[in-house]
Amino acid sequence: MVINMKFIEGGICAAKGFKASGTYCGIKKPNIDNYDENIKHKNDICLFACDTICNAAAVYTQNKVKGAPILVTKANLEKSGNKAIAVIANSKNANTCNADGVDKANEMCALVAKEMGIPQEQVIVASTGVIGQILPIEPIRNAVPTLVKDLDYGKNLEAATAIMTTDTVKKEYAVEFEIDGKICHLGGMAKGSGMIHPNMATTLNFITTDCAISSEYLQNALNDIVKVTYNCLSIDGDTSTNDMVSIMASGLAGNDEINSENEYYTIFKDALYEVMANLTRMLAKDGEGASKLLECICKGAKDKDTAIIVAKSVICSSLFKAAMFGEDANWGRVLCAIGYADAEFDIDKVDVDLRSDNGTITVCKDGAGVAFSEDKAADILSCDEIYIDINLNQGEESATAWGCDLTYDYVKINGDYRT
Amino acid sequence: MVINMKFIEGGICAAKGFKASGTYCGIKKPNIDNYDENIKHKNDICLFACDTICNAAAVYTQNKVKGAPILVTKANLEKSGNKAIAVIANSKNANTCNADGVDKANEMCALVAKEMGIPQEQVIVASTGVIGQILPIEPIRNAVPTLVKDLDYGKNLEAATAIMTTDTVKKEYAVEFEIDGKICHLGGMAKGSGMIHPNMATTLNFITTDCAISSEYLQNALNDIVKVTYNCLSIDGDTSTNDMVSIMASGLAGNDEINSENEYYTIFKDALYEVMANLTRMLAKDGEGASKLLECICKGAKDKDTAIIVAKSVICSSLFKAAMFGEDANWGRVLCAIGYADAEFDIDKVDVDLRSDNGTITVCKDGAGVAFSEDKAADILSCDEIYIDINLNQGEESATAWGCDLTYDYVKINGDYRT
Repeated sequence: MVINMKFIEGGICAAKGFKASGTYCGIKKPNIDNYDENIKHKNDICLFACDTICNAAAVYTQNKVKGAPILVTKANLEKSGNKAIAVIANSKNANTCNADGVDKANEMCALVAKEMGIPQEQVIVASTGVIGQILPIEPIRNAVPTLVKDLDYGKNLEAATAIMTTDTVKKEYAVEFEIDGKICHLGGMAKGSGMIHPNMATTLNFITTDCAISSEYLQNALNDIVKVTYNCLSIDGDTSTNDMVSIMASGLAGNDEINSENEYYTIFKDALYEVMANLTRMLAKDGEGASKLLECICKGAKDKDTAIIVAKSVICSSLFKAAMFGEDANWGRVLCAIGYADAEFDIDKVDVDLRSDNGTITVCKDGAGVAFSEDKAADILSCDEIYIDINLNQGEESATAWGCDLTYDYVKINGDYRT
Repeated sequence: MVINMKFIEGGICAAKGFKASGTYCGIKKPNIDNYDENIKHKNDICLFACDTICNAAAVYTQNKVKGAPILVTKANLEKSGNKAIAVIANSKNANTCNADGVDKANEMCALVAKEMGIPQEQVIVASTGVIGQILPIEPIRNAVPTLVKDLDYGKNLEAATAIMTTDTVKKEYAVEFEIDGKICHLGGMAKGSGMIHPNMATTLNFITTDCAISSEYLQNALNDIVKVTYNCLSIDGDTSTNDMVSIMASGLAGNDEINSENEYYTIFKDALYEVMANLTRMLAKDGEGASKLLECICKGAKDKDTAIIVAKSVICSSLFKAAMFGEDANWGRVLCAIGYADAEFDIDKVDVDLRSDNGTITVCKDGAGVAFSEDKAADILSCDEIYIDINLNQGEESATAWGCDLTYDYVKINGDYRT
């Protein structure tokens, strides 16, 4: 954490120049009887935009099946030279695996461009919701003029709730920090990890900042921070077709544009990490059916990749996740998951602690179990946030991975069990 | 399937020269109140042995944490030049992550060797059950003389039930086949995929045959067949510390020893595949909390590895597994899991069918969803065995992967939920 960095309200509207709006336009998902009862919010479409042209960067799903909005956003940013002004995003329909998907995604951009009087390729588009269902475009055509008219500096919440699917809480985070005497802001909103029939696994994340930074360094920073935040998040190991993280930088903070790996670039990356790590944590905590947040911190690794691989291996273990649901101090499952992590290290040096607000216990030392009080373990595991501290004791690098427990509700939500 | 290969009874005693025995010796698992109620069987230790010295081969867990029995069996086979006469195996305690584990595993071999008058290094040892709990050796010392005395050609069932942990059914399979006019037999027993506190994920598999084959070709055949059977099985993605597959060949069928890649080697491998694929299928069907067997067949791949990777990716998807529990024809999740499979192929050529005894429906054609009758889909998915047929349409290779649905009971069994 950078000195003088502090949490602020405002989400995607925290940075200077960014306005947002959101509304319910009526994108209905047909043929799913129980759909509406799972929806915890009202808005289904949002827009946010900057007063000026922004440098932009994005990271997309690695799934070979890519949603139409992914393809269109990627093409737009290429065409615009990584410049963007506005983002339009809807929930309830992912516009993926449809023959007319790209046309519809392009039309969404065209509608915003026309209404705002901006180039179409400076519009980013995202959709989340059911895949393989035709996106109804008429409600969106009707909504865009309202969305543009309603754009306001304080309406981040209208947007943050519009991208929710089965998310139970909206996810926003923003920080204020200083670069060369100029006050900068960086904030974001995210959705994800709740899903119902047939597939809403998508993680969407939108970041805005008023820090001046070139598109190239914006992309570099985003790539580096995604690797240690979103890519260290696992709810169930499934990678969605529509995952996207985008970032827009307005430059309105007035600092000299960052375009080298100088000290200001480091500060910017720290701010980006702070926001994205907190959003990642929120996503994990609101994972499908989750009752507990799991945070695994692997220290003492010979390199960063080893630390990431080991931490993720534990977070992804269904056995360990189920044990945490049962509040069972099952160190054998932690050690087992460390043991099958696809990295090179000496298992006989590994120590493992389990920790929460109620205390810490060492469950494994030098790769073997150690005696501990079952009562104390039960007390520690009764908390909502559980930390698994792994020390490989063979280097200086560390990494964190986030996940959640595996619960009856996960099976229920995803089984869409027809009683 | 080789012409003239047929299923026979007898499990590990189907091949000439192999005797077995099993008993309850009293290996108690301490400190786990609900342990016994999960146990569906009585025996906790077994022995099987051949009238003659066998060529032997084995494949072990790839987990860095390896159970003591794994280390001892590996050392023994190295010392004996891949020869073995007897196998001793216990359930209820995995003898893993204990300081005295290797000593105890060696003592188990020594006890059998002394009682039978055979070299200690010709004994294979395996344990499955709780890890990180000291193995009580006294009950085993007391049981070995009885086990040796009771060895009998017809007692395969006594052994097959002794290795069960939370398995709900015993798993045996055997075939008869012909090599150059000689009748050969190959059979096996397996356990696995049921687990309770804290870790019983182990898959054990023992194969015996009277076919004459060199240790080298026995190992080659085992490596090849494990790759397309056990390594294509996933219940929850967790790799145990004690997994082991061993095979012993007595040569008593009287055929000329197979020691090249000739036609007889091919017949032998077909027989081994038949037995191991059927045991794998039984393991999947009896997976933790499973209500349905899932069998994914990927055809039309440019190479074998691509077919394996794609089929396994579908079988490992928690989202898809939960959908199958809910009998929900969720083609989007199949396509999503195919899309993130770590292999190179063109997603736009992929077709997917769902199939069972109640019929077949095409749910995906050329990488996009197609309309289908929800009623017919529900009817198909109401069966206990579901087949997912994938055609990549870009080559001639195929592979099968086996798994099971993700159910409330999986979470319950592994959460050890303390109500």
